[in-house]
Amino acid sequence: MKPIREFFPILDWASDYGRAALADDLLAAMIVTIMLIPQSLAYALLAGLPPEAGLYASIAPILLYAVFGTSRALAVGPVAVVSLMTAAAVGTIAQQGTAGYAVAALTLALLSGAMLMVMGVLRLGFLANFLSHPVISGFISASGILIATSQLGHLLGIGAAGHSLPQMLSALLRGLPQVNPVTLAIGAAALAFLFWVRRGLKPLLRRLGMGARAADVVAKAGPVLAVVATTLVVRALRLDEMGVRIVGEVPRGLPPMTLPSLSSDLVRALLVPALLISVVGFVESVSVAQTLAARRRQRIDPDQELIGLGAANLGAAFTGGFPVTGGFARSVVNFDAGAATAAAGAFTALGLGVAALALTPLIHFLPVATLAATIIVAVLSLVDVSILRRAWAFSRADFVAVAATILLTLGVGVEAGVLAGVVLSIALHLYKTSRPHVAEVGLVPGTQHFRNILRHEVLTDPALVILRIDESLYFANARYLEDHIARRVTPDCAVRHVVLMCSAINDIDLSALESLEAIAHRLQTMGVRLHLSEVKGPVMDRLKASDFLRDLTGRVFLSQYDAWRDLAGADQNRSVAPITGPVIAPSNRLPSSS
Amino acid sequence: MKPIREFFPILDWASDYGRAALADDLLAAMIVTIMLIPQSLAYALLAGLPPEAGLYASIAPILLYAVFGTSRALAVGPVAVVSLMTAAAVGTIAQQGTAGYAVAALTLALLSGAMLMVMGVLRLGFLANFLSHPVISGFISASGILIATSQLGHLLGIGAAGHSLPQMLSALLRGLPQVNPVTLAIGAAALAFLFWVRRGLKPLLRRLGMGARAADVVAKAGPVLAVVATTLVVRALRLDEMGVRIVGEVPRGLPPMTLPSLSSDLVRALLVPALLISVVGFVESVSVAQTLAARRRQRIDPDQELIGLGAANLGAAFTGGFPVTGGFARSVVNFDAGAATAAAGAFTALGLGVAALALTPLIHFLPVATLAATIIVAVLSLVDVSILRRAWAFSRADFVAVAATILLTLGVGVEAGVLAGVVLSIALHLYKTSRPHVAEVGLVPGTQHFRNILRHEVLTDPALVILRIDESLYFANARYLEDHIARRVTPDCAVRHVVLMCSAINDIDLSALESLEAIAHRLQTMGVRLHLSEVKGPVMDRLKASDFLRDLTGRVFLSQYDAWRDLAGADQNRSVAPITGPVIAPSNRLPSSS
Repeated sequence: MKPIREFFPILDWASDYGRAALADDLLAAMIVTIMLIPQSLAYALLAGLPPEAGLYASIAPILLYAVFGTSRALAVGPVAVVSLMTAAAVGTIAQQGTAGYAVAALTLALLSGAMLMVMGVLRLGFLANFLSHPVISGFISASGILIATSQLGHLLGIGAAGHSLPQMLSALLRGLPQVNPVTLAIGAAALAFLFWVRRGLKPLLRRLGMGARAADVVAKAGPVLAVVATTLVVRALRLDEMGVRIVGEVPRGLPPMTLPSLSSDLVRALLVPALLISVVGFVESVSVAQTLAARRRQRIDPDQELIGLGAANLGAAFTGGFPVTGGFARSVVNFDAGAATAAAGAFTALGLGVAALALTPLIHFLPVATLAATIIVAVLSLVDVSILRRAWAFSRADFVAVAATILLTLGVGVEAGVLAGVVLSIALHLYKTSRPHVAEVGLVPGTQHFRNILRHEVLTDPALVILRIDESLYFANARYLEDHIARRVTPDCAVRHVVLMCSAINDIDLSALESLEAIAHRLQTMGVRLHLSEVKGPVMDRLKASDFLRDLTGRVFLSQYDAWRDLAGADQNRSVAPITGPVIAPSNRLPSSS
Repeated sequence: MKPIREFFPILDWASDYGRAALADDLLAAMIVTIMLIPQSLAYALLAGLPPEAGLYASIAPILLYAVFGTSRALAVGPVAVVSLMTAAAVGTIAQQGTAGYAVAALTLALLSGAMLMVMGVLRLGFLANFLSHPVISGFISASGILIATSQLGHLLGIGAAGHSLPQMLSALLRGLPQVNPVTLAIGAAALAFLFWVRRGLKPLLRRLGMGARAADVVAKAGPVLAVVATTLVVRALRLDEMGVRIVGEVPRGLPPMTLPSLSSDLVRALLVPALLISVVGFVESVSVAQTLAARRRQRIDPDQELIGLGAANLGAAFTGGFPVTGGFARSVVNFDAGAATAAAGAFTALGLGVAALALTPLIHFLPVATLAATIIVAVLSLVDVSILRRAWAFSRADFVAVAATILLTLGVGVEAGVLAGVVLSIALHLYKTSRPHVAEVGLVPGTQHFRNILRHEVLTDPALVILRIDESLYFANARYLEDHIARRVTPDCAVRHVVLMCSAINDIDLSALESLEAIAHRLQTMGVRLHLSEVKGPVMDRLKASDFLRDLTGRVFLSQYDAWRDLAGADQNRSVAPITGPVIAPSNRLPSSS
């Protein structure tokens, strides 16, 4: 267990917090607050919750992360993928808009927070590694497509239900006759404006003479401009009476105290989704935090990050929120705006508190289509299916895992996608290591090096089989080695010695030891001796802890060349010289295994 | 797909089958038949089936294995562990003694046979490797204890129900008042006799001048003697009227044609048990077959073995049997008795067919307690908990997997035990490889070798960090490496170069590649260059399929010594000589990871 002080990273910077850091943090907080207001509302919508839940989910969690988190730039709150996963998990339990739905979202945040906390205290951060890079990036791309599709309905003024692409598309098709043209006009205008802001505004401002950083900040405020403009238009023309869905009445006030339900049915139904949300959120968050920390030679502690994110989610659970994590875009903005410490986050929380107190009446006429447009623009930047191309070029196993993740996320839903990715990655890894590369090697003439007899002109001896095993030996591949050696040696009566060259064996387990014993025993019954060469220190320590070395019929050679000098040509009193003894390019051998 | 001929190993020996082989096979078959009659009856009892099912399960399966199996000595039929697993699986579905119970056993054999067949045709034999050596030996020991306990009830003349040790023991305790003293007397006598046969008879016969092989055969006939003697006693004294349970009416005749049920409920309930039975049976059988084959320089083909055992189980399903596999004791007897080909098995089947036709009336008065004593003596030889001691000495991970398997098998049941063993083995293996050994190394003075700076007096350079990674890189350990390097380099501003020594990296996946890219990128933001050295051919091929090498800020060195010559002391124009440049035993470093 680490010292108590390390559970409170805030102590690292709070004691010598100075005026310069304060100024930096205040500026960063202002910019992030402006960016977060529309985003919080939009992600609440995506999660199927009332808009104020988005604000609430950004206040207490940010404060708690500032105390417990190790990243100085990470901005915590509702993010797109986790909001989608929340909608998918809670949507199977309660109807959107009901009290049960909101309570289930609180419970999900509670479970996720508790799991993250426990994983952090027990230092189980490594568990997140089983969600591999390619799988998570395939998953996020697929989620981006799902999210954009789900928001198309809001843009068209029709409902779009469902948790998979086929469900969503068929709902959209069925809804097409009910498209509301006014909503569509507003949504399309907001969408076009936001795309232009992203692509065209910043270069324009630079050309008009604005500094790079200022231009960046103005461009990030684009969604706020869209929100203000469309709200004013809807209010002026009373477009809500023409069927344009608006946000409507939003309660004023600070986040309420809420109590998640702990009914055992609900908890049981949400356990797996909470675990998946925790892991996906953690992996995303920690990679952003690590990248930003490295730029300033700071370090983040992944296990303490689990505690920080866990505290943030527990905060969300008791203050009317829903699951949160560190967001990519907002953290980068926070960092670029100069945030020096986690106090920037605390000031952002203050800003959002003011917004919850004062601004909510102003967003009564905010059209939902504008929020949908905000989401679509934000998530389309997540979609990057080039991972498929990269994975294909790199290895088929990676490609299969990524493709399955994408297909299942789109076709079945987020949970199926993540689970398939994790299970397939593990299965493919085990499959690969269960059929290790085993090369029969011979001596490269004039050197002390040994190379694959199938690829190089090397010296061999018919009485001597040298096999190099290019993998650690463990239960999944131990019997493969037994089979391989049986296949090679059984039909070849000339063989007197088998040498296993162990230079690539990093570890060995008890199954592999028993396989080696079985191999030695079976070779002995054929009158063949088993030797080892180039055994690494830790592996040798393992072998010494057993009876294997005592019962070994052959020897353990420090180097393969020692083994060759000792064994080659020994049986027929042949010399080791290439002409009289061993022959080049032997026949009577099987191709290597892979 | 392999040639059709290879699916029928019988063709390898049937065409030149001669008189010598015939004589050998006939003798072996006679001995095995005598051994199998009481064993078949006893294992049917263990499986909860009527005694004739044991005979039926030995006839068609043996004939089919003779056609499709590759081992010439393996004797197939009901075995103790698989019979116990059958009772556990079918017992949860139907009541013993009902027609539903027998049909469920047929369905279990059908499913198991079909799975083995499919695995064989698809060459999925490697799947069985995930049941590791230590796990299977722990499982078999625990099963032996369960089986012996379950038979104690029959020995005492009371019922002993349950599928776990606590259930069985409490049933025994509750039944103690009803102990039948006559049954107990017969059972105890049979037990004592069988133990004596095993320990004392063979030495006695040798001292009386009998040959070793003949003495062995007579000793193996011990159970038959016990069966004959106790049957005669019960019949003569009509002990069955004093409460001694007897086998009773056994139908005469050849195995009947039977149809397993394919009702979807039954199939769904038996799928997992069938898979476990298939894998456990296959692993046991194939290791016996391999050991015996090696003694005569024969080979068995594990994928074809799956087909052979699959055919045997399908045969059992349609002829009134239950799941079967290759038995250890009977195969060794068959081998030692001189069986030359699988024809010995066919003759054994003939012998058992004669028994089913002619001998069944004779066993009417056979007391069940004798069969229980036969089982107890047979299975106690399976119990060998020394695997726990061996695993403890060898590695904690292996010990945990074995101990969990034994505890869960005894405490919960066979299925829980096998599943726990497989899942824990995989989890522990992944855990181990997810935290690879990473050593910081330096140059051993006067050599070209690099060793761990914590263990050896080596040359280092404050601007140069050389890390040797002792594991293949894949998704589970990729981020560990990121963390490790960040921890080492971030606080140390003197570092200009990081060299990853890749001599122990056998493979690399896309996640690891992306981690390397992230490491290179983060090091670059700190002004540190990343280099690789001693990259293996296949790993280099992988890297070349990506953009990594193009974007690498440093170089790829063929040998670590090349890297040292190029980088050590370069930044401050220092020479590589130990006195002016690099320093011995550096400070400011973290301990290596493990």
